[in-house]
Amino acid sequence: MKNWRNPGSGTLGKLALVLPLLAAGAAYAEDAVQTAAPSIDPAALSALRIGMDTVWVLVAGMLVFWMNAGFALVESGLCQSKNTVNILAKNFIVFAISSLAFWVIGWNLMFGGNGQMWTGLWDLFPNGDNSPALGSAYAAMNPFSTAVYAGDYEAINWTPVPLWAKFFFQLVFAGTAATIVSGAVAERIKFGAFMIFSVVLVALIYPISGKWIWGAGILGSTPSGEGLTAFFGNFRDFAGSTVVHSVGGWAALAGVIVLGPRRGKFGKDGKVHPIPGHNMTSAALGVLILWLGWFGFNPGSTMSVGDGSAIAHVLVNTNVAAATGSLGALITAWVLLKKPDLSMILNGCLAGLVAITAPCAFVTIGSGAIIGTIAGVLVVFAVIFFDKVKLDDPVGALSVHLVNGVFGTLALGLFYNTEIAKTVAALDTGLTPGAQFLAQLKGVVLVGVFVFPLSLALWYALKATMGIRVSVEEEVEGLDIGEHGNEAYPGFQSTHK
Amino acid sequence: MKNWRNPGSGTLGKLALVLPLLAAGAAYAEDAVQTAAPSIDPAALSALRIGMDTVWVLVAGMLVFWMNAGFALVESGLCQSKNTVNILAKNFIVFAISSLAFWVIGWNLMFGGNGQMWTGLWDLFPNGDNSPALGSAYAAMNPFSTAVYAGDYEAINWTPVPLWAKFFFQLVFAGTAATIVSGAVAERIKFGAFMIFSVVLVALIYPISGKWIWGAGILGSTPSGEGLTAFFGNFRDFAGSTVVHSVGGWAALAGVIVLGPRRGKFGKDGKVHPIPGHNMTSAALGVLILWLGWFGFNPGSTMSVGDGSAIAHVLVNTNVAAATGSLGALITAWVLLKKPDLSMILNGCLAGLVAITAPCAFVTIGSGAIIGTIAGVLVVFAVIFFDKVKLDDPVGALSVHLVNGVFGTLALGLFYNTEIAKTVAALDTGLTPGAQFLAQLKGVVLVGVFVFPLSLALWYALKATMGIRVSVEEEVEGLDIGEHGNEAYPGFQSTHK
Amino acid sequence: MKNWRNPGSGTLGKLALVLPLLAAGAAYAEDAVQTAAPSIDPAALSALRIGMDTVWVLVAGMLVFWMNAGFALVESGLCQSKNTVNILAKNFIVFAISSLAFWVIGWNLMFGGNGQMWTGLWDLFPNGDNSPALGSAYAAMNPFSTAVYAGDYEAINWTPVPLWAKFFFQLVFAGTAATIVSGAVAERIKFGAFMIFSVVLVALIYPISGKWIWGAGILGSTPSGEGLTAFFGNFRDFAGSTVVHSVGGWAALAGVIVLGPRRGKFGKDGKVHPIPGHNMTSAALGVLILWLGWFGFNPGSTMSVGDGSAIAHVLVNTNVAAATGSLGALITAWVLLKKPDLSMILNGCLAGLVAITAPCAFVTIGSGAIIGTIAGVLVVFAVIFFDKVKLDDPVGALSVHLVNGVFGTLALGLFYNTEIAKTVAALDTGLTPGAQFLAQLKGVVLVGVFVFPLSLALWYALKATMGIRVSVEEEVEGLDIGEHGNEAYPGFQSTHK
Repeated sequence: MKNWRNPGSGTLGKLALVLPLLAAGAAYAEDAVQTAAPSIDPAALSALRIGMDTVWVLVAGMLVFWMNAGFALVESGLCQSKNTVNILAKNFIVFAISSLAFWVIGWNLMFGGNGQMWTGLWDLFPNGDNSPALGSAYAAMNPFSTAVYAGDYEAINWTPVPLWAKFFFQLVFAGTAATIVSGAVAERIKFGAFMIFSVVLVALIYPISGKWIWGAGILGSTPSGEGLTAFFGNFRDFAGSTVVHSVGGWAALAGVIVLGPRRGKFGKDGKVHPIPGHNMTSAALGVLILWLGWFGFNPGSTMSVGDGSAIAHVLVNTNVAAATGSLGALITAWVLLKKPDLSMILNGCLAGLVAITAPCAFVTIGSGAIIGTIAGVLVVFAVIFFDKVKLDDPVGALSVHLVNGVFGTLALGLFYNTEIAKTVAALDTGLTPGAQFLAQLKGVVLVGVFVFPLSLALWYALKATMGIRVSVEEEVEGLDIGEHGNEAYPGFQSTHK
Repeated sequence: MKNWRNPGSGTLGKLALVLPLLAAGAAYAEDAVQTAAPSIDPAALSALRIGMDTVWVLVAGMLVFWMNAGFALVESGLCQSKNTVNILAKNFIVFAISSLAFWVIGWNLMFGGNGQMWTGLWDLFPNGDNSPALGSAYAAMNPFSTAVYAGDYEAINWTPVPLWAKFFFQLVFAGTAATIVSGAVAERIKFGAFMIFSVVLVALIYPISGKWIWGAGILGSTPSGEGLTAFFGNFRDFAGSTVVHSVGGWAALAGVIVLGPRRGKFGKDGKVHPIPGHNMTSAALGVLILWLGWFGFNPGSTMSVGDGSAIAHVLVNTNVAAATGSLGALITAWVLLKKPDLSMILNGCLAGLVAITAPCAFVTIGSGAIIGTIAGVLVVFAVIFFDKVKLDDPVGALSVHLVNGVFGTLALGLFYNTEIAKTVAALDTGLTPGAQFLAQLKGVVLVGVFVFPLSLALWYALKATMGIRVSVEEEVEGLDIGEHGNEAYPGFQSTHK
Repeated sequence: MKNWRNPGSGTLGKLALVLPLLAAGAAYAEDAVQTAAPSIDPAALSALRIGMDTVWVLVAGMLVFWMNAGFALVESGLCQSKNTVNILAKNFIVFAISSLAFWVIGWNLMFGGNGQMWTGLWDLFPNGDNSPALGSAYAAMNPFSTAVYAGDYEAINWTPVPLWAKFFFQLVFAGTAATIVSGAVAERIKFGAFMIFSVVLVALIYPISGKWIWGAGILGSTPSGEGLTAFFGNFRDFAGSTVVHSVGGWAALAGVIVLGPRRGKFGKDGKVHPIPGHNMTSAALGVLILWLGWFGFNPGSTMSVGDGSAIAHVLVNTNVAAATGSLGALITAWVLLKKPDLSMILNGCLAGLVAITAPCAFVTIGSGAIIGTIAGVLVVFAVIFFDKVKLDDPVGALSVHLVNGVFGTLALGLFYNTEIAKTVAALDTGLTPGAQFLAQLKGVVLVGVFVFPLSLALWYALKATMGIRVSVEEEVEGLDIGEHGNEAYPGFQSTHK
């Protein structure tokens, strides 16, 4: 009679084990020997904790998922209205693609292959949830067994959440890397070509460099032995300034080079002709979404609720860098451009967020404020620089994600604080800031040397086969009609035509 | 001196009971008999767990509430700019109405009336929080009492969260059903008529069919006895493909039939004249909001954090179906319409989400991917079909919610996996996929046979009394001026006039 | 070999203490004396609880942060398109400013200075996390120590979350107060002047009146002694109808007076010329964001998960007041203005939310519904009133935040329910509704008498020095070009020029 929609009954059952036992314990204590207060079944407490950790990791993952909306709005808002449908479609479908590519191939390649330094497991689909229930770090949590079973995903065994929670959290990070590319190649790329590039990026490129850092590979490990394993290592990147942002940035840079600039951006007179974004409401809302999403991105990277202080420290560091990044860019733009340009403020905020992503758990809040400020200044100069070298990046993705992804990763070394590293990240290397900086630098170079040439080759291969750039006519008319047969705002008079 | 704003002191007090007891336990163990490690007051642990479950259920409910924004944006974005204010107002006010209708009448009708098969409690307002504190499932959690008191809401006693948390979570689901109708009847319905229909839907129709399934009624129960109670039963719908989506869909279908199509949609030449949506930025942002909201809708339907693995499984299934739904519709549209139409991609995503809502806790992730793919294909054909039979549904609500609500409910049977049903849903029927499919089919038919004719009658009654359709002049000019005296975008040149 | 990116290992370590102990306990019980079930290390359980509380406070804080997006959209949507960039920039940068001003000065001034009645600690930056780990309320949680150390932030010692979590939650409230001003002074204020006013508001004005109420100051304390400390006290404001909303409202009123109305709002003929907002999609989405954000604002003010029932009560009260506020304004507008004006519905919703913010934990759900209804009626009359007295408030901020902030604070007294105050707020004063109303009234007056003249003086000082109003030419052309050199919608034909 009770088996109607009742998803909690069994679910509950497992945990509710605690309560009869509690009662029993109480009875025992009171009625029989009276030697102890009522006590609790440890298996039930363990389930309670795993539930709590799971909810935190999933909610944080949802916030990162929500960044898809942020990127869609920022990128479409900073581009022309005639390309809006195309940009929205690209940003939307890229996460759908990531969901499959990371599931089928990427996850295994990034977190499988225990003990391997360069790539993970070459196999399809996650192979069962052996990691949390029976894995090495987890085994200690099982009071009924002292068996230690490594599992296939030992590199991510340290968090006590179920496999699918880990998978979802890592998936949304992989999706972010692919989305970064989207903005830089906007307003001229073929929809199909972008889809194929995204599949390869999420299935292969991102997980391989990710394996080096978060998969217990060559960069994340302690240097040992001889040769490359002695040269590299001790690299730290708490939430992905390098793993996500500069990887996306390198892939985007390659795309920008192979595609060439939009028509009319760089005049024959050698001057830069700005192409203003069509919707600053979209752009501002998008950045606020991203700021919010970053509260999942960085604090969620604890992947456990074990230490509330650590989560709070990471969150406040993230917020302060976003604030000083915004203000740093505001002031720089006010000085350089005479007015506080909104798109510069917005990119300053994102720059601060990207830069604090690696060091947020390794530096003090004061250092976070400084890192954000520098990032905000840096992004304005970077935008000007890329225009000067005629690399056309419609939304400033290179300035935000590549430049500040690299800067943030190095800043972790410059501002390295042993005490914070111990208590917040629990990943202290014991190195001095100088030595840590060197470890960071090696990692930045290794990742760039891998991702950029590979992306370049892939873009060239796509160009040679299916073509990557829309026709001149389509670019002038807008990609919305050409690629999708839609208009974004058919009820409004446009200034374009 | 300490009674300033201090909401936690008492709150905290209850839980903090644990700590003096802990200390006491420790002291006892060390100083007196030394027979046990320090132990914990079970009442405090119970409060900890209830607090955690409550936060999860409320946060998930907030995500579902947030879907109101998604529906408002999708529906207004896919309609004309001259009707934007009206659609936004409808979607906004429908949740306000639901908040009252479900509070005053709906809740009791859906979850009260223990042992009743067809309707719940005919009484006003939830009658006190006896369900979690003293209710039958909950009683076992009270280590100081073995009394089992059924409470008025035994059907939802399985989750250990307070009444108001249950109420809020169920309220946002009721609101969703009403919002579905809004899109299908857009651009021609009178504001007042829609408000009245929504009151009846949320106060009466939705809770009655909901009682059958989630309120331990005729469909959710195990078949027993003779007659109808032997014929129906074992129906499963984890998060509402039928309870919410097809119910909203049937009500919408009735509205579409009684209202008739918008002027100009179906030409005298027999051709379909598409009326493009005015704002694809709104539409795309809306679907991303809904995708996010669904992470509350489905995983939150565990209504407890007892089993983290179950929550994570449901979430990943939800995500994969959204992804394959998007891609399925993309490819289908690319093949059929020659271009990857964005509105089809968006509806494909929603179709996948609707379809996975019932089966997400009963099928494997692989099955989830297949269900999403089929839903994505199905929605494109459904849109074409409804156009062909001259049922004018401006936003595709019937194709998304009715067609895929039915499909998803049946798919639960087709892809039924006993192991997943046991471990994730904890609601295994023990049936084979074929038998489960039959149970699902009976439920789908019963709900349709109840909701559709009743909605039809209600729409006709409203038509006969107050009228449901705006005048031709108002429809041409736009409902924003006619119904509300507002314009949505007065600063912009429109192409309409 | 395990020190790659592994933020949880140490984090986990702290909590995982529980498990060896559990196992040990079990072993002890079974193998040796068998006098007790396995028991749990209380330090680990304490960490579990702190982690859970921290996650709740941070997630609630994120929801309040998200209200920045809501205010940005509501305010820009209800203003003209030519001032959109300016409003977005103001709303964006005001939170960046708040993040620094509240960190450097505001926090200490609001929560430091134990035992002081009028201001807090005059010192820079939060001085270390002594409050949760060693503070007075917290000490009782440490089973290994009976030492009670007050800490510098005794006023907020009652919540067991780490300092940075408290700081973030309070920061987003401070930011909200500053954002309220933004809407009222829109479409004519200089960007730089607004920035400076915001710094002073968040660094000094807001924390000082906040100290009185939430910092164990003159208003929040129990009346005692003679003079002012005997006259004031017992004031209650659960989540900030006064602390946040009416403070922002008073500051806004001062700005509106000093700035004067927008050109053309009040004609020489004595008539009011409405200036319609440019984007009702923005406005409606903005209010839905604020509604969602308020689920963090009010329920999050428990700042602990200790009592799930309290959180759920506060949330349902918040929701019902938003619903009845919307419907109250809808009906009032329908009667007065003949049509259900959408901007009135939206402001009605916000009015209900502001009004329920103080009393949500002190009144029944039924009272919440009534308070919301009154607020919805009140806001329509207030909008008409401010127009009549020629105070030009483009977005209705005074009607929403000032009028209903005051009303809600007083309503706490009128509808005061001792039982709810005890169980939900845990802050019962023991007063009758009449006496409580008087206590509320004194507080409302004291805060107004402090904030309004001070803000007036500050606005006049800014006017006399740097100027606060843009030139006539700039106001006509739009502040976007004049202040920022940007256009919000360059791709669209405007009706302005």
